[in-house]
Amino acid sequence: MKVLGIDTSSLAASVAVIEDNKLICEYTINTKKTHSQKLMPMIENMLKISDININEIDVLAVCEGPGSFTGLRIGMSTAKAISHVNNLPIVGVNSVELLAANMNLCDKKICSILDAQRTQVYMGQYKFENNEIVELKSVDVVEIDDLLEELSQTNEEWIIVGEAVYKYEDKIKLKSNIHIPAPSHNVNKASSLCSVAINKYNKNIDVYDCFGINPLYIRKSQAEVQYDEKMKRIQNGK
Amino acid sequence: MKVLGIDTSSLAASVAVIEDNKLICEYTINTKKTHSQKLMPMIENMLKISDININEIDVLAVCEGPGSFTGLRIGMSTAKAISHVNNLPIVGVNSVELLAANMNLCDKKICSILDAQRTQVYMGQYKFENNEIVELKSVDVVEIDDLLEELSQTNEEWIIVGEAVYKYEDKIKLKSNIHIPAPSHNVNKASSLCSVAINKYNKNIDVYDCFGINPLYIRKSQAEVQYDEKMKRIQNGK
Repeated sequence: MKVLGIDTSSLAASVAVIEDNKLICEYTINTKKTHSQKLMPMIENMLKISDININEIDVLAVCEGPGSFTGLRIGMSTAKAISHVNNLPIVGVNSVELLAANMNLCDKKICSILDAQRTQVYMGQYKFENNEIVELKSVDVVEIDDLLEELSQTNEEWIIVGEAVYKYEDKIKLKSNIHIPAPSHNVNKASSLCSVAINKYNKNIDVYDCFGINPLYIRKSQAEVQYDEKMKRIQNGK
Repeated sequence: MKVLGIDTSSLAASVAVIEDNKLICEYTINTKKTHSQKLMPMIENMLKISDININEIDVLAVCEGPGSFTGLRIGMSTAKAISHVNNLPIVGVNSVELLAANMNLCDKKICSILDAQRTQVYMGQYKFENNEIVELKSVDVVEIDDLLEELSQTNEEWIIVGEAVYKYEDKIKLKSNIHIPAPSHNVNKASSLCSVAINKYNKNIDVYDCFGINPLYIRKSQAEVQYDEKMKRIQNGK
């Protein structure tokens, strides 16, 4: 069974194919170039060098969010389009769980974060138990200061993973029980996405068709927030 | 400082660029297509999509072995050529250390293996201490049965990492204290190579110019073994 994974929830675009227990190929580009410019050329080049025809793919995996609004839509649209044409199931994986999967088999507890702008982060907490990821706290949006204080007060060893750690590196380094992974492990990676997705697919969790899967936004976009405020002002006659 | 890493020591070809603490791009293709066919197109495509000119690279990192004889020569020649043209330092990282780096921040001890044909594996043993990789046993070639028996008798928790684990999966699964990582973590990855290389470069360990670095073969190739045997027979007048 070949699984093609697509993650565009952060600055990085990452695609990979895992067949059974073998990572066949993975391509990650973590630059400011937009996902709409890089995603399709990456998939095309990777499948071409790997001698894989898109028709050989059995299952799609996509990061459903939270993360960049535009990024999520590009990854989700691409997965939906391929799914629609080839009638493939899509497994949805959230961005904080796939980041936790970067820290495979770690004994420390894992807190994944993604930048949610201002001083907030999207966050989820996980641990590995019997070699499987177990969710300790489901995805939420929190103030970074509150989160670091909470982790520091547990008196347990934590790994905090995700590119947003560099934005708050100075604060994190003040907490002796919170560790930052190597750069190789601090990016959204489609190989981790595929690993999580295969486990979910085998348990028939979060498996959708192209119409059923939707992005997980957690909170409204800035445009929607402003629109709601405007509507409220109009209703109040201001 | 931009580091371009190249690993062709196993079936997988993997290339990556890390700048300071950020993984900029990574490309891994793990198919039977030869390294000579896939390596240069991968580097070219990855740098192009990432908007990186090869002249922006400051340091090269290459997997020096042990591993596939032909694979090592292709990766090493490519690194030497780029180094020669642009006068860049090359950091040499051995294949078992970079595999261990896939298990970043794990508390369990790590045994990396690469297939050495017949019933043998190239092997190195590591652990993470204060977030850095520490070598417990340096690279060697051993019988897989002896290795598994040794690990099992330590009564400690071990992770055994590297694609060769699938060749010996049935034997490994009989040992309850030895764990196999997810497929995402069981391949040679240039991002892990770059992570190790940056630490080495900063400490000025294993930094060479294009003439100084050489593959680490551990044992002679089958052709050399046969040649030596032939010479011995001739000397003995047989």
